[in-house]
Amino acid sequence: MSNDINIEIKQISGGVLAPKGFKASGVASGIKQSGNKDIALLVSDKTASAAAVFTTNKVAAAPVFLSKKHLVDGKARAVVINSGNANACTGKQGDENAQKMADITAEVLAIDPDEVIVSSTGIIGVQLPMKKIEDGIKLAAGKLYNGIGADAAEAIMTTDTFPKEYAVSFMVNGSEVRVGGMAKGSGMIEPNMATMLAFVTTDARVTADILKQSLKNSVDKSFNSITVDGDTSTNDMVAVLANGESGIEIEHDAVEAFQEALDQVCIELAKLIVRDGEGATKFIEVNVTGAADDADAKKAAKAIANSNLVKTAFFGQDANWGRIVAAAGYSSAEVDKDKVDVYYGDEKLLESGQPVDYDAAKVDEVLKAKDIKIKVDLNLGKGSARVWTCDFSYDYVKINAEYHT
Amino acid sequence: MSNDINIEIKQISGGVLAPKGFKASGVASGIKQSGNKDIALLVSDKTASAAAVFTTNKVAAAPVFLSKKHLVDGKARAVVINSGNANACTGKQGDENAQKMADITAEVLAIDPDEVIVSSTGIIGVQLPMKKIEDGIKLAAGKLYNGIGADAAEAIMTTDTFPKEYAVSFMVNGSEVRVGGMAKGSGMIEPNMATMLAFVTTDARVTADILKQSLKNSVDKSFNSITVDGDTSTNDMVAVLANGESGIEIEHDAVEAFQEALDQVCIELAKLIVRDGEGATKFIEVNVTGAADDADAKKAAKAIANSNLVKTAFFGQDANWGRIVAAAGYSSAEVDKDKVDVYYGDEKLLESGQPVDYDAAKVDEVLKAKDIKIKVDLNLGKGSARVWTCDFSYDYVKINAEYHT
Repeated sequence: MSNDINIEIKQISGGVLAPKGFKASGVASGIKQSGNKDIALLVSDKTASAAAVFTTNKVAAAPVFLSKKHLVDGKARAVVINSGNANACTGKQGDENAQKMADITAEVLAIDPDEVIVSSTGIIGVQLPMKKIEDGIKLAAGKLYNGIGADAAEAIMTTDTFPKEYAVSFMVNGSEVRVGGMAKGSGMIEPNMATMLAFVTTDARVTADILKQSLKNSVDKSFNSITVDGDTSTNDMVAVLANGESGIEIEHDAVEAFQEALDQVCIELAKLIVRDGEGATKFIEVNVTGAADDADAKKAAKAIANSNLVKTAFFGQDANWGRIVAAAGYSSAEVDKDKVDVYYGDEKLLESGQPVDYDAAKVDEVLKAKDIKIKVDLNLGKGSARVWTCDFSYDYVKINAEYHT
Repeated sequence: MSNDINIEIKQISGGVLAPKGFKASGVASGIKQSGNKDIALLVSDKTASAAAVFTTNKVAAAPVFLSKKHLVDGKARAVVINSGNANACTGKQGDENAQKMADITAEVLAIDPDEVIVSSTGIIGVQLPMKKIEDGIKLAAGKLYNGIGADAAEAIMTTDTFPKEYAVSFMVNGSEVRVGGMAKGSGMIEPNMATMLAFVTTDARVTADILKQSLKNSVDKSFNSITVDGDTSTNDMVAVLANGESGIEIEHDAVEAFQEALDQVCIELAKLIVRDGEGATKFIEVNVTGAADDADAKKAAKAIANSNLVKTAFFGQDANWGRIVAAAGYSSAEVDKDKVDVYYGDEKLLESGQPVDYDAAKVDEVLKAKDIKIKVDLNLGKGSARVWTCDFSYDYVKINAEYHT
């Protein structure tokens, strides 16, 4: 790396509005019966390079198909998002309504509809209330001039209990470049993308190709490394817009710095999603090392992080390492039962597949904390992975049993 | 099929002791702190043909490895089972202890240790209390003469709330043949075998090869078609012993009748396991039809049956078909979102991927019942599958958070 680049990433405030040349707003249009904010707009002053990663669910929602189409050229100018209604399983009318959302947004912003990314989240199988959507987009557009990023972050929430924003800056050739983002998550979060919304802005100048690859890399390390309940949804996407307003081109050595900044924004947003997991009382980092390869490590880590039995044991603050080993064992990862080590924090509880004496007080301390790290060393190779998850409490059941259609 | 065979299967009482020439008992040896029964013996008067299907978990327990070895010759005489301790993650000493269980059983029954199937279920990572095991096996052996099948069924329980037994008979050439079984399950039940114990007896005379294939067929339709929480355990097995005491050879047309009888015993035991799912308040049958093939149908059905969001919605008695469609969509099955139909009972809620008007009172009735059937027609091909699951209640979390190691 060249000496001109200070790869030190600095956290800054401002979320999606931390980078120069973006505006955002969030309003209540009445889609949500609660009267909470439900329409967000995010607009770049200029046409931006853009890329996105979408849900892999085969029953993807109408806005997912539309946004994919609009991003074929690697460019976008605005994102319109509604919460409270997913516009999924809504057939031909759903497709038309997604298109209308783009058209309305384009009209009020005086831009091309193809430059609009459309995103929806909420209840499945109900047509969008288009009059409310239209009024809401117009209202949101009127608030852009002095718009507040936090309003947009709030307007994309569903069962989230707090808005999620994060931003960083780094220096290239003495000039500051910024990357910011907002996300929504809560339940239904699992690796393999899907099941959350995140929108990232940057004032770096980045080609669509580099942006696409950088986003993919970051998403693998962040949104695809978290899990709340293993379900993947019909709607979700992570999109990034790079408008170049910092004047700094991301090329050569700067690519690495940009990647790191984008990683950090995506990872911190992903972690906030886990922290806000439905009913979560614990934040758990699952490390798997010594796997045959990284892919195997991720399979084992995901199996552990997704296990209801593991997650309820953490809620119960119990050192039930048996459930952890069993989950690794039924994952498709290579596992030799006589080689597995398991650590809670720094305390080793299992060595070469057999329980060892450990300091119960220390393990108790680990389990009582809100943030817990566990490590499973498969002792087979050099593969490793890190996955974040939350525990599984009564409130998860409550929230999801009482969320009525 | 020949006219000599009455393929009508009749339910009879007696569980594993319904077939002739078997003895069973169950005693409390003190492995369980509760003082409940924890050692079961199941013995055939003569050496029997035997077959078993074992957990696919790579961290399989010591008794699994031993029993596999003992079944290589397709013969067995006795099964010894302890509950309260899984003898899993117990290393070399665990292997030795499993062998000792076979040796002690062989000694008290005056048979060969290789004729003994050994099975354990319970806590992971703790060495078996061998003195209690030894005393328990001897005590159980002493009770075989007037042994009661229900005692054995009780002695294999862990978090189960009731013992699970089932038996049937059918006629071949005017003679009665019987098939009976017992099972334990509760949490950690998921397709792909593993995570439950079931022991089936029959007085049919069956070659080891036919027995093995018949068992595999039955397990696919029963224990591999249920799910409680998606976790698969380290220990579990389904074993069948055929001692020939009815004098009836299972060959030619009788193979089909035997298969049906074995299917019925396995399916009914599997359903009992789901009904006793930890915290379950509903019994749910998930039918998937119109899939590209049967394997695809099973993938979609399992994704639906394993979804925490689907299961909590049933607990909440909510017709949240969106979660069902989303689960089918993220399964690896082929799904065309514009072709999917969804039924609750006989009421169609979704047609060609779009919500339709339905009789809300009828759907409400379906959801309020204890037994619920849903159907997802993918409208793509002729593949179908049926999977049984239960809902997901507060008590699931309670049981699993409070089950301390």
